[in-house]
Amino acid sequence: MKPWLLGCTLLVSVAAGAAPLSPESLATAARLRDQALAGSGAYEVVESLTTEVGPRMGGTPADARAVAWAVEKFRSMGFDRVYTEPVRYPVWRRGHERAEVLSPFPQPLHLTALGHSVGTGGRIEAEVVEFATLKALEDAPDGSLEGKIAYVGNRMERSRSSAGYGAAVGARGGASTAARKGAVAYLLRSVGTDSDRLPHTGTMRYEEGVRQIAAAALSNPDADLLSNMLRRGQPVKLALDIDAGMQGEYESANVIAELRGRERPDEVVVIGGHLDSWDLGTGAIDDAAGIAITARAAALIAALPQRPRRTVRMVAFANEEQGLLGGFAYAKAHAGEIAQHVTGAESDFGAGRIYAFSTSEAPEAARETVEQIAQALAPLGIEHTPGKGGAGPDLIPMAQEGMAWASLAQDGSDYFDYHHTANDTLDKVDAKALDQNVAAYAVFAWLAAESDADFGSKPKEP
Amino acid sequence: MKPWLLGCTLLVSVAAGAAPLSPESLATAARLRDQALAGSGAYEVVESLTTEVGPRMGGTPADARAVAWAVEKFRSMGFDRVYTEPVRYPVWRRGHERAEVLSPFPQPLHLTALGHSVGTGGRIEAEVVEFATLKALEDAPDGSLEGKIAYVGNRMERSRSSAGYGAAVGARGGASTAARKGAVAYLLRSVGTDSDRLPHTGTMRYEEGVRQIAAAALSNPDADLLSNMLRRGQPVKLALDIDAGMQGEYESANVIAELRGRERPDEVVVIGGHLDSWDLGTGAIDDAAGIAITARAAALIAALPQRPRRTVRMVAFANEEQGLLGGFAYAKAHAGEIAQHVTGAESDFGAGRIYAFSTSEAPEAARETVEQIAQALAPLGIEHTPGKGGAGPDLIPMAQEGMAWASLAQDGSDYFDYHHTANDTLDKVDAKALDQNVAAYAVFAWLAAESDADFGSKPKEP
Repeated sequence: MKPWLLGCTLLVSVAAGAAPLSPESLATAARLRDQALAGSGAYEVVESLTTEVGPRMGGTPADARAVAWAVEKFRSMGFDRVYTEPVRYPVWRRGHERAEVLSPFPQPLHLTALGHSVGTGGRIEAEVVEFATLKALEDAPDGSLEGKIAYVGNRMERSRSSAGYGAAVGARGGASTAARKGAVAYLLRSVGTDSDRLPHTGTMRYEEGVRQIAAAALSNPDADLLSNMLRRGQPVKLALDIDAGMQGEYESANVIAELRGRERPDEVVVIGGHLDSWDLGTGAIDDAAGIAITARAAALIAALPQRPRRTVRMVAFANEEQGLLGGFAYAKAHAGEIAQHVTGAESDFGAGRIYAFSTSEAPEAARETVEQIAQALAPLGIEHTPGKGGAGPDLIPMAQEGMAWASLAQDGSDYFDYHHTANDTLDKVDAKALDQNVAAYAVFAWLAAESDADFGSKPKEP
Repeated sequence: MKPWLLGCTLLVSVAAGAAPLSPESLATAARLRDQALAGSGAYEVVESLTTEVGPRMGGTPADARAVAWAVEKFRSMGFDRVYTEPVRYPVWRRGHERAEVLSPFPQPLHLTALGHSVGTGGRIEAEVVEFATLKALEDAPDGSLEGKIAYVGNRMERSRSSAGYGAAVGARGGASTAARKGAVAYLLRSVGTDSDRLPHTGTMRYEEGVRQIAAAALSNPDADLLSNMLRRGQPVKLALDIDAGMQGEYESANVIAELRGRERPDEVVVIGGHLDSWDLGTGAIDDAAGIAITARAAALIAALPQRPRRTVRMVAFANEEQGLLGGFAYAKAHAGEIAQHVTGAESDFGAGRIYAFSTSEAPEAARETVEQIAQALAPLGIEHTPGKGGAGPDLIPMAQEGMAWASLAQDGSDYFDYHHTANDTLDKVDAKALDQNVAAYAVFAWLAAESDADFGSKPKEP
């Protein structure tokens, strides 16, 4: 190709789309990347949140301590502004939870109530009936489970992505189906890939107008045990005593830390994670990791000699676990600002390395910028996989209204060994893997905020 | 070497020692080995005990169910005689156990009381003081822990043998030392190699005349958490509420299954495991595996066309966990029969493959027989390691009185990930590895019982 032709191509590209990112911006991205890999400080943030706050389920006193922790921690990181936005929600409370096999083989079972489950109203005793899958339960005749406990036993498969989870998690929603057939309680095999005697919780929801029965997950070894008992063909009778339920309202907060854009402060690139955790573990991988990764990425940008052109906003979302409640509150509070939220990415898939980058479908004009970001991420071992991925959970409410998103997909091969269990603790986090994540978020946030590309955020037609 | 010289050597060998094992006996050993490897049925026995009985701590109703299970199971396996011998012991009872950090970072801690520990006498609140090792606690000045909780934080190292355990387990005995310094309770990091939030129990003992304080183990992630809090230099205050203690006496039983020797029925080769487990898991690797391995090994011998020359006795020992109580009862009941117990081996180191064979020092006359047994084990990947190993725990009381023993050392690399925790469940057991163990025990028991060698059992001089 002749020199003048090359120049012409570039001109066409510029005319058709956004200005390409400058060599200076790209060089800064490379420096941010190297700096993060040399030690991002993210592990120390995870250590701080899990040690000094620990479990921080929405609506608990620890939730308030987590918000105070975040405000103070972010204030120490060089942001231009740290503030909170209120998030109100109904409170779910976990009391005690006990289960045992009464006959024919008496022994205790380890289970945990699903979030938003009601209790059993004291101790109940009933025979348990196993279904291989949720579908099999759905196919059971109405009334066929009168007075029985329904149990769905299918096991989650391991995968790098969330595919295994997606295929299995539906079983968490089986309580109303079981109740319609007459069941007095609903059990499922934990949605998890481990063989540890630590059950996996997670939120469930009741169908309107259907009797509410307690829903709880057995650990995988307990699910094996129960299935092995049932395989013998004799009736298996359980006792359950679960105390749980909804109780009042609570006001928590999204904690927001901002770097004000030097040229286009009203245009915002959002990164973040969720501040709440389940009550069982210390929420190290879910999602102190996401908070640490995105806060440290933004802090690295904060330490640069100048701000990016656009605003970088790091959001520590409230109560993701019980229904993206911080995400919905954020979307409501910023309903009129879809177009100004030029793109965003949430880190909420554990502490594994990022292996893929993708975005929501970008307008033709933004494709070169997306490609430049992908190239800046490539040295981190991150592949560009257009057409894949999705908005992080707390950005779904904004994405549903038309906000563009990016996905930095983490290797989740072992995420579901610990997810939503007491085993979600600091020792599951590798500092080097966190550094790679910080590098990727810093590169992404910096370049998206340095560009003038329109990544496609546009309010949905009503 | 000339033929006549070889013949002469053999004659000398026979004259000096026991008759070598016959080619027929060795051929039978090889068939037993192959038969076990093709599918020994040991996994099914572990499944049966863990499913149909489950946790079976000494002195609990499940202990009695385990004895009944063993009698019935062994009766179905073709033994000549199945019988029990009484074992009486004081009962330890675990009630509730709760712990939390009160300040500066309130959150729950996961711990479990050590066997034979007393409770805290209701809820107590006290500052915790960390010691890197038991030695460091021992070096603390008397009275320096007045009103405090002592915590020993050293971590067990992983190893194939029991070396890592041996180095760490001493910390379980620190309660009386802590009490002498003034402590109100004693905590230690779990003696385990995992990072699961499941604490490891195990028996402790109080020194005579020293105030008894509660002793409990934190899971490894909780120990990390506590150490990380203490590293910050502020006082850390805990609340402990442990209900546990000794309560009455109980009569359990050693369950014994025998194949009567066709020529020397009074000479006995003992194999076995222990029937009891801790209360937290279902005791799959500790020690349903040992029961299954040795019962199936003896059952394979039972199915041969003829009995071995000596008696093979399989013993399912009672309450090993709380101080080799079945082992001591056996030694007392058979105190006059040390010489008749020609040798023995207990399987109580999990469900991993056997990698080494050794014996107590054999008289010169038995060495060829020992070498023949070692050669019959070699195809199983088992090395002969003279001078190593030791008697299995329940045979220690007999060995101390002069009984000869053999050791079939298992790979315990992951044994202490699960040992004495709720995670000791069926899913940790590999059927193929069990088959290799059964093969080894069948070869050993058959050949030791077919030989006329004196392996060195001799009552100790008083």
